[in-house]
Amino acid sequence: MEYILQDYENINKLGYNKGAKMKIKGVIMVIIVLMFFNCEKNDTKKLVSISQSKNNKKVNLMPIPKEVHLLKEKHYINEDFKLSVEGKTGKMVYVNSTRFLRRLSGRTGLFFDQDFITTESKCDSAELKIISDELGEVKLNADESYFLEISENEIFLKANKENGIIYGLETLLQLLKSDQNGYYFQTCKIKDKPRFPWRGLMIDVCRHFYPVNVIKRNIDAMLAVKMNVLHLHLSEDQGFRIESKVFPKLHEKGSDGLYFTQSQIKEIIEYARVRGIRVIPEFDMPSHTTSWFVGYPELSSKDTVYSVERTWGIQDPAMNPVSEYTYQFLDKFIAEMVKLFPDEYFHIGGDENNGNHWKENENVQKYMKENDIKDKHELQTKFNQKILKILTKYNKKMVGWDEILQPQMPNNIVIQSWRGKKEMIKAAKKGYNTILSNGYYIDLFWNTQRHYLNDPVMKNANLNPEVEKNILGGEVTSWAEFTTSENVDTRIWPRTAAIAERFWSPRYIKDIDDMYRRLEVINFHLEEIGLTHIKNREMGIRRLANGQDVNPLRNLINVVEPIENYTRHHTRGEKKRYLQQSPLTRVVDFSYSDASVARKIRRATDEYIENYSSTKVEKSSLYFTNNPKEYLVNELNKLSVNNKKLAPIIGNSSILKEIKPLSKSISKVANIGLEAIDKLESNKTISKGKVEKYLKIINDSKEPIAELENRIIPAVEKLVITVSLK
Amino acid sequence: MEYILQDYENINKLGYNKGAKMKIKGVIMVIIVLMFFNCEKNDTKKLVSISQSKNNKKVNLMPIPKEVHLLKEKHYINEDFKLSVEGKTGKMVYVNSTRFLRRLSGRTGLFFDQDFITTESKCDSAELKIISDELGEVKLNADESYFLEISENEIFLKANKENGIIYGLETLLQLLKSDQNGYYFQTCKIKDKPRFPWRGLMIDVCRHFYPVNVIKRNIDAMLAVKMNVLHLHLSEDQGFRIESKVFPKLHEKGSDGLYFTQSQIKEIIEYARVRGIRVIPEFDMPSHTTSWFVGYPELSSKDTVYSVERTWGIQDPAMNPVSEYTYQFLDKFIAEMVKLFPDEYFHIGGDENNGNHWKENENVQKYMKENDIKDKHELQTKFNQKILKILTKYNKKMVGWDEILQPQMPNNIVIQSWRGKKEMIKAAKKGYNTILSNGYYIDLFWNTQRHYLNDPVMKNANLNPEVEKNILGGEVTSWAEFTTSENVDTRIWPRTAAIAERFWSPRYIKDIDDMYRRLEVINFHLEEIGLTHIKNREMGIRRLANGQDVNPLRNLINVVEPIENYTRHHTRGEKKRYLQQSPLTRVVDFSYSDASVARKIRRATDEYIENYSSTKVEKSSLYFTNNPKEYLVNELNKLSVNNKKLAPIIGNSSILKEIKPLSKSISKVANIGLEAIDKLESNKTISKGKVEKYLKIINDSKEPIAELENRIIPAVEKLVITVSLK
Repeated sequence: MEYILQDYENINKLGYNKGAKMKIKGVIMVIIVLMFFNCEKNDTKKLVSISQSKNNKKVNLMPIPKEVHLLKEKHYINEDFKLSVEGKTGKMVYVNSTRFLRRLSGRTGLFFDQDFITTESKCDSAELKIISDELGEVKLNADESYFLEISENEIFLKANKENGIIYGLETLLQLLKSDQNGYYFQTCKIKDKPRFPWRGLMIDVCRHFYPVNVIKRNIDAMLAVKMNVLHLHLSEDQGFRIESKVFPKLHEKGSDGLYFTQSQIKEIIEYARVRGIRVIPEFDMPSHTTSWFVGYPELSSKDTVYSVERTWGIQDPAMNPVSEYTYQFLDKFIAEMVKLFPDEYFHIGGDENNGNHWKENENVQKYMKENDIKDKHELQTKFNQKILKILTKYNKKMVGWDEILQPQMPNNIVIQSWRGKKEMIKAAKKGYNTILSNGYYIDLFWNTQRHYLNDPVMKNANLNPEVEKNILGGEVTSWAEFTTSENVDTRIWPRTAAIAERFWSPRYIKDIDDMYRRLEVINFHLEEIGLTHIKNREMGIRRLANGQDVNPLRNLINVVEPIENYTRHHTRGEKKRYLQQSPLTRVVDFSYSDASVARKIRRATDEYIENYSSTKVEKSSLYFTNNPKEYLVNELNKLSVNNKKLAPIIGNSSILKEIKPLSKSISKVANIGLEAIDKLESNKTISKGKVEKYLKIINDSKEPIAELENRIIPAVEKLVITVSLK
Repeated sequence: MEYILQDYENINKLGYNKGAKMKIKGVIMVIIVLMFFNCEKNDTKKLVSISQSKNNKKVNLMPIPKEVHLLKEKHYINEDFKLSVEGKTGKMVYVNSTRFLRRLSGRTGLFFDQDFITTESKCDSAELKIISDELGEVKLNADESYFLEISENEIFLKANKENGIIYGLETLLQLLKSDQNGYYFQTCKIKDKPRFPWRGLMIDVCRHFYPVNVIKRNIDAMLAVKMNVLHLHLSEDQGFRIESKVFPKLHEKGSDGLYFTQSQIKEIIEYARVRGIRVIPEFDMPSHTTSWFVGYPELSSKDTVYSVERTWGIQDPAMNPVSEYTYQFLDKFIAEMVKLFPDEYFHIGGDENNGNHWKENENVQKYMKENDIKDKHELQTKFNQKILKILTKYNKKMVGWDEILQPQMPNNIVIQSWRGKKEMIKAAKKGYNTILSNGYYIDLFWNTQRHYLNDPVMKNANLNPEVEKNILGGEVTSWAEFTTSENVDTRIWPRTAAIAERFWSPRYIKDIDDMYRRLEVINFHLEEIGLTHIKNREMGIRRLANGQDVNPLRNLINVVEPIENYTRHHTRGEKKRYLQQSPLTRVVDFSYSDASVARKIRRATDEYIENYSSTKVEKSSLYFTNNPKEYLVNELNKLSVNNKKLAPIIGNSSILKEIKPLSKSISKVANIGLEAIDKLESNKTISKGKVEKYLKIINDSKEPIAELENRIIPAVEKLVITVSLK
């Protein structure tokens, strides 16, 4: 799982939002503005139309549908609101239309009459008419399209299958707004379907285990942003997380008691199914398998006593690829698991086998010699071929990480690419179905924008349609070395919502400002379905402040970000390295990889500098209700005095000691920023010596403290340089 | 479930905290202060000793142990902290000592080496030595005592059974503090055991259903405050919440799909068992049974079509007490259930049968005539006798609400008293075992103090020891008409922690100020174990503010309380009455029945007035770091301008419209309070006309708005009257 940084293509940042500023007057009933946003040659049908209401309110949809025609009326709702369900409908529609009612009622406080929508729910007077032609299906390439039409008096939601209906309901909820007269949906017509059929989230429940409710709330969030694959990483060196009745020592010895029972797994799968989400199990093999060997050492390549691994990183243990026992075991085990998981795909991992235990094993070496197998890759392919045979017997298709792609493997397997897009495209060109995860490693502490702009099929990839079709979509991967039930939602969300848009919406939807604007709204509504991504950060801050004022600590957290990539592993030295049982409750664990205030400070700085040097009249931007300078000065002032407020709090909460120098440095840097602005405003300069001194302070502040980076530094650095260039 | 208000005994409010001000100097190593707090004749062994450290820091224990000797050293901990487990230990100790380690590590950020404590965990160098003589047992009258000794270098935790160990670990965590040098436990000796053996929480999962994780987090919270009975109210008119394999239509037709599967129930019971908590199921009968009849109408007294009840209140449907089918059915059903629930007690409800359907049923009437049964009570007793026979056959003891106590019932049943203490004492005197719930109805929106001062055995009850022994303890009841998974924790906690102290600690522990002080700390730590009582209120405020500034709304919520008792049922008129599906997301649903700022304003007012009229020098009190006047003026000023800030927010969030007049009235009343203080300070008077006008405004403001009461009114009223009396 070591991560190779990807090459970004050059991305044109123009897009969606620019067009929204166009305005056509004089059309009375319906103002349709057709906008060809930053059109790309390969994109057809990318008609998106937005009306300009008097209040200049924008749509808060995420993912942006394929086609949106906003109209100018408002469909108000009151306590008489009812929905009806027609056509072929089942549990998918019943559960989700009931959930829709409760969420609508919860947001608005309106007392609706309808209780649980069931087969028997009939309602001729309903203002929301739901019509589904066929029952839903939860499999690759299911029809997920829908059509939504909101007029002043009625709402139609129509789809070929239930899958489309449940997406349409989420879109409808995203359209809810409030004004002086009450709650309303803006009238519109929406025709929607996804760009990619495989829109996944992988959750690693091995490095740290999460109970059923954590998975369920993430499933609800996935539905809210129209994702449709939950990939459960179920076995690892650090834990075997599912009950096996055939080989009970797997979970009994390999899980510390932390695993899903079979009935819990069924519960999860059914919960996901009703929400249009496939569940794909991953049993990583032949490596990443220490936890299997605690109960069944005879599966391993090395005759030793195994215990659940507590450290992170690539481990030596691997299954014995030359023993018949291994394949008999796996045959029986897979036979048991395929009965639980109905999806046609089955993930066998296959990554990061370092081959050390194979090298040490005489039988393995002998077998390789005898069969003319030149390296561990070829041997692993032999292993994979045998596993493929087992899977095929049970009517399952194989999915695996990059490494399973070897010349001898047939191309009916799916390659999940963690290494990079080039590898993926190579595979797609060879005829393999592929999904992209490189660039979507949500555990790397990247900002949203970086993930968002990563496209499985970039415009300039110039793939022919046949090859492009082999790229099924992508998967966000949430590896769990640094997450617990408490903070995992804060890691996955809201960034995954932006990636979900990448998987669903047309490629040309990529305006960063507008993404962040919409994400702020969606983020907030994701709480409604039970996610803890906002509240648990707040809880973390409360706990860290140990009953004292939380504001100074929150101010700090709003401008710092955890260090990126896997550098956290190497920050504490060998003696204090992270173990499975290490606390994940420090400031870094409740900090966010897209610190909002820091981002806005950087943005305000850019806008301020741009305007300062041209007209000195600050423009009002998308972000700043007043002007960027005002925002900047306010925030820097707040940070300037923050250390004074935070220091005594740190004194009474020992867990905060490690951020003492960080807090100091933030206030110092903020002061430099304020001085630079002052000079720019009063048209004065700073002496060269002082500039050098300041830049040195800034440079020194770039050194992470307590695994955190001060993210206002780029802004202050720019301000100082701007003054120095005068 | 209509509630009869109880009579309070006269309570001497002196107590615990007074004694803590004593100080004995000159003892060097150990300062032991023996204090006989407000001694009562019947209390023996109520030795509690508290040292006065230089910093005057107090213990934050809740419940207060039977005996505490605080010493003056500090036992600091660092990353080398380890624990060892000796004697007879099982899952109870392993799970909870592992949880202890993780919570300690989580709070402190310290990286401990130990991972999962198991049979194999040996550690000679451990500084925390845990010694349990016997395995735990989860049944009535289990030995729950423990002894905890913290010295500078070692900590001993010793108990006869594992039960005591897990309580000692909770006590130890409550003792953790932080200073400039790091984290430490104050050295002390604690000898502890509970006052009552039955310390329960009843959760109604029928009016609204909660999934497993909600129950689990409440179980963890129960352990944290040393409660030991989880009473699950599993069937009701509004839902049948457990899977029955024998009579599957019970959950299939009676639950809207919201029920515990049998494997989930087993999961809950095991989770509770490991935490020393008995689980007692309640199947309310013969009334409160509509949901049974949806699938099995033949059980009912009236031949009709039943559907799950959506309204609240007492319903007519009741089981048919004269049909053999009923008893055959219940025999089979109980046989199935007793296999799931290992506790020796089984709750059959028995409350609030209005007898209407019995009156309408010819066979019932005929049977009554033939058997000389004069009323519904006698008939219900016949029914209960038959159920008792079934329970006895399955080795279960019967528990029921007050109504099951009828002359013909034998005294080996347990009476849960919801009607009042007099009834309970009457039963106890007759030799029945009893538990008190009257006064602990946590759904009545009472403040903490009112519940806290309610004692199952008041000092002046003057019971003889034999009778007193029949009073086993009490149960907090959390009825669920107005709670959902989202806000149920905010209703149960933290108030239940104070009641838990009533059940555990000596009777004379009843200082209100100190209870509130400690509750504030315990409240905050209850978050650590997963309770959502703080974070979900904050989430509610965020949602209600609809993305706008949350502070003005929070200011309002901090001074208002939901209207008390069951008046919410009658506030919206028949047409808009509450149904099961009604939204519980309005301001009232995220308001707290012990609004903290309002409470402090009232307290500050009392202190201010007292001092104003005597010396005019404000004393510094337990609550107010500066002085009460300063606190008062600050808070009233904040409220005075709050409406101005809240009004535009209400304008953009229609769900808040209903509190518009409330917000206005709070600012108005705050202004009156400020004026009164101003007059008092400047030694001026207010004209009689103005006083009358103000008192009228205050009086008008007493009318609830949006089911909420302005709780600063008593304070402002006192201020105005004080001025007027000058």
